[in-house]
Amino acid sequence: MQKSAEFLFDFVSPNVYLAYYPLKQLAARHGAGIIITPVFLGGMHRLTGNAPPFLRDAGVKGKNAYAMLEMDRFIARHGFDKFAMNPHFPFNSIQLQRLLMAAKEDRREVEFIDFLLPHVWERGANMTDPEVVMALLDQSPFDSAEMAARIQSPDLKQQLVDNTACAVDRGAFGLPTFFVGGEMFFGKERLAQVGRALAAA
Amino acid sequence: MQKSAEFLFDFVSPNVYLAYYPLKQLAARHGAGIIITPVFLGGMHRLTGNAPPFLRDAGVKGKNAYAMLEMDRFIARHGFDKFAMNPHFPFNSIQLQRLLMAAKEDRREVEFIDFLLPHVWERGANMTDPEVVMALLDQSPFDSAEMAARIQSPDLKQQLVDNTACAVDRGAFGLPTFFVGGEMFFGKERLAQVGRALAAA
Repeated sequence: MQKSAEFLFDFVSPNVYLAYYPLKQLAARHGAGIIITPVFLGGMHRLTGNAPPFLRDAGVKGKNAYAMLEMDRFIARHGFDKFAMNPHFPFNSIQLQRLLMAAKEDRREVEFIDFLLPHVWERGANMTDPEVVMALLDQSPFDSAEMAARIQSPDLKQQLVDNTACAVDRGAFGLPTFFVGGEMFFGKERLAQVGRALAAA
Repeated sequence: MQKSAEFLFDFVSPNVYLAYYPLKQLAARHGAGIIITPVFLGGMHRLTGNAPPFLRDAGVKGKNAYAMLEMDRFIARHGFDKFAMNPHFPFNSIQLQRLLMAAKEDRREVEFIDFLLPHVWERGANMTDPEVVMALLDQSPFDSAEMAARIQSPDLKQQLVDNTACAVDRGAFGLPTFFVGGEMFFGKERLAQVGRALAAA
């Protein structure tokens, strides 16, 4: 059985973008697979009492400024010269996450992410507008009409809810969160630990 | 001029204990000095609106459990087999920090920390009791009576207040915080970055 890193994924998180590409490199280096588990970050925050850091830490002088500094350092160190904050952030990602669920049903979740993630975190697309999302998918190898129909499925919607609740039961409270074996790692600054866990797996 | 890492220090923080010894190793490896800057963490929290993580994050399901897990991992990775949570934590560290200020006036701050830190974070001494602290100093190369007199100095007390306010002005909001050159790093998980900054300094 191939070893693997599980990645809890929601398009809404800039740190998920920043962690995704280094995680792929880590996995390749260690001959490991990546398991993408779509979750809904908004639901995760509701279930845990958490909030987006820029809101949660707004009352602490210096804390968000430091988080931005660490984001800038991470971007510089990894050469993410295309990254740009999405002007519509924080946006409701529920439609995107349901589409990712549909792509995952077809085992095309990585292809879906590879296509869409740069639109979100490099080109500032307005992901709250379903027409924008569908127009983007029309430029992709995915069948936008077929996917739009499938994300109406109550079962698919429920699976995303279940993924999120299950992640919280396993200890997750924010993104990016990774699992290697039974071990959880939170935050892009823990990628080195994910790499060590993959090396030991 | 020797390159150096500045370490904002308060005995009250278990993560300061955990970061102190790896920082010494890093500094030695890079031929760098360590500048100890005594601050009062309670004052830093008041000035920034921050709070100890175990209080601040108590309402977020999973967050403190994960912080404990990362503490355990850090302890295991660095072989800190003597570390023990102080049963009196969180204790008022103002007297200890003033004593550290006095030691620093004599350029003996590292010697003072090396003596006292294990009593706090290995042997669970009750640091809120001035008699306990003085009895410990009586077993040390320090002159407890002389130091007890010096920490009554308004100037020394004010210098600790000023150190804390200045640290906040420079961006600090919690401990452990490090500076290399003009660059600030927060958290024991940033020691690798401190090492890279020392290598580049």
